Amino acid sequence: VSAHFADRLSELTSARGPICAGIDPRQAQLPVGQGAAGWGAETAALLASGVAALKPQLAFFDDEWGPVEAVARAADGRCVVIADCKRGDIGSTAEAYARRLLGPDSPFDAITVNPYLGRDALAPFVDAAAENGKGLFVLVRTSNPGASDLQELTLESQEPVFERVARLVHAVGEPHRGRCGRSLVGAVVGLTAPPDQIRRLRELMPHAPFLMPGYGAQGGDPDAYRVALDSDGGGVLVSASRSLTLPWKGQAPDDWKQRVQGALAEMRGQLGLG
Amino acid sequence: VSAHFADRLSELTSARGPICAGIDPRQAQLPVGQGAAGWGAETAALLASGVAALKPQLAFFDDEWGPVEAVARAADGRCVVIADCKRGDIGSTAEAYARRLLGPDSPFDAITVNPYLGRDALAPFVDAAAENGKGLFVLVRTSNPGASDLQELTLESQEPVFERVARLVHAVGEPHRGRCGRSLVGAVVGLTAPPDQIRRLRELMPHAPFLMPGYGAQGGDPDAYRVALDSDGGGVLVSASRSLTLPWKGQAPDDWKQRVQGALAEMRGQLGLG
Repeated sequence: VSAHFADRLSELTSARGPICAGIDPRQAQLPVGQGAAGWGAETAALLASGVAALKPQLAFFDDEWGPVEAVARAADGRCVVIADCKRGDIGSTAEAYARRLLGPDSPFDAITVNPYLGRDALAPFVDAAAENGKGLFVLVRTSNPGASDLQELTLESQEPVFERVARLVHAVGEPHRGRCGRSLVGAVVGLTAPPDQIRRLRELMPHAPFLMPGYGAQGGDPDAYRVALDSDGGGVLVSASRSLTLPWKGQAPDDWKQRVQGALAEMRGQLGLG
Repeated sequence: VSAHFADRLSELTSARGPICAGIDPRQAQLPVGQGAAGWGAETAALLASGVAALKPQLAFFDDEWGPVEAVARAADGRCVVIADCKRGDIGSTAEAYARRLLGPDSPFDAITVNPYLGRDALAPFVDAAAENGKGLFVLVRTSNPGASDLQELTLESQEPVFERVARLVHAVGEPHRGRCGRSLVGAVVGLTAPPDQIRRLRELMPHAPFLMPGYGAQGGDPDAYRVALDSDGGGVLVSASRSLTLPWKGQAPDDWKQRVQGALAEMRGQLGLG
């Protein structure tokens, strides 16, 4: 159908740097008179040529399809659009999600997926992505404090739980690598994780694109992404939401678009992108 | 606002037995000319006085709100309605989901939640449920083969991962028990799990309602639910989807409502409910 997801993503990050802009329409911060769809689409149109990826968070669209579709359409193919929905379910139900979110008619290029239900719950997403030139990012080591409750528990083999998830991500992704060498199955790895964890995860998943949340509001170290770069010096997306697309307190000021452009320039500086 | 979720659920299971009917509108099996909303609402209306709970699976409603809301409204308060959506996200995003799915205006009485992101990802759901007389069921040990990939891994403490999740479910649920003694925080425990796992999970979560999928199509032992009964001989929902609400091959026959009623009578017999 279309180019391999990993190849498209790699071209974009090579050309523009590794920035992913989170689109989380928090009602109290939107411009007066605008809703999720309006602000989301305007922000997507504003940023789609300057970032590698946009990541609308479905929770902030009340799980409604129309408004989030409007955001994806506003990007108009200029960057990849990752629907952050963290889906995960047993086989036949995962197939239903995969048809909708990663089918040929989906406006999204990729989604985020939860691994708690295991390999048979990932398979329908991998299959749909492979068939339709799309991708997925599996939660491996998230950026929130609760990552320690389950993901960081130590197994009797002395590895943490998240390393086993990483092995699973590598195993299901390896048959689906693009010309760039990277897989359409990526991993969510928090920028807030200790560098040795990030380094280890890169060893275990040498070909997975990393989607790294935790920049800005969550306090992740901007330099931490360098540890995650793969042997070709890429394969990373640093995701910022509030600090990039809603960089103000309270309701949006009149010059909100300039503020967003300013926040992007600042983030590029902090990541050393010049 | 309304009675405690666990009290309502306990009254229903005492009066009617522990059956939860899954509403998964698989297009190829629906009556000719009916869509997800139409069949779902008719099935809900048909069963709401005969079962303790209905469980619409959001994946089969294409994540659209209108049709699944129609199903919940058709139940008209005659039983509890559990939205099977397996949501799980970091704190502020989980709050957005919780407002929508467990807020005072939500048509649902409870939802299913994924624990991979840890305690801070569960808290907003617990808070919203407590405030609005609603409940949640956290995935602990699912019914699918992939449960072994992550949930059944052995920790260095020699307990499996799912036991740590069970301890977390117990901890967050304990402050939220109803007059019946049960909590509004329940657990998803597959009927396909070995009896010793189910027994252990009941020990670790003495006050959690168990939602047990895996009956029928997934091959769970109908007697397995007895092991999960709590010290008052309740606290269990056995969930059946295809075998109960779509008990035919191909498109629905004309007498589909009698078939569903027949499947309910058969399931009651298999569970020894007379």
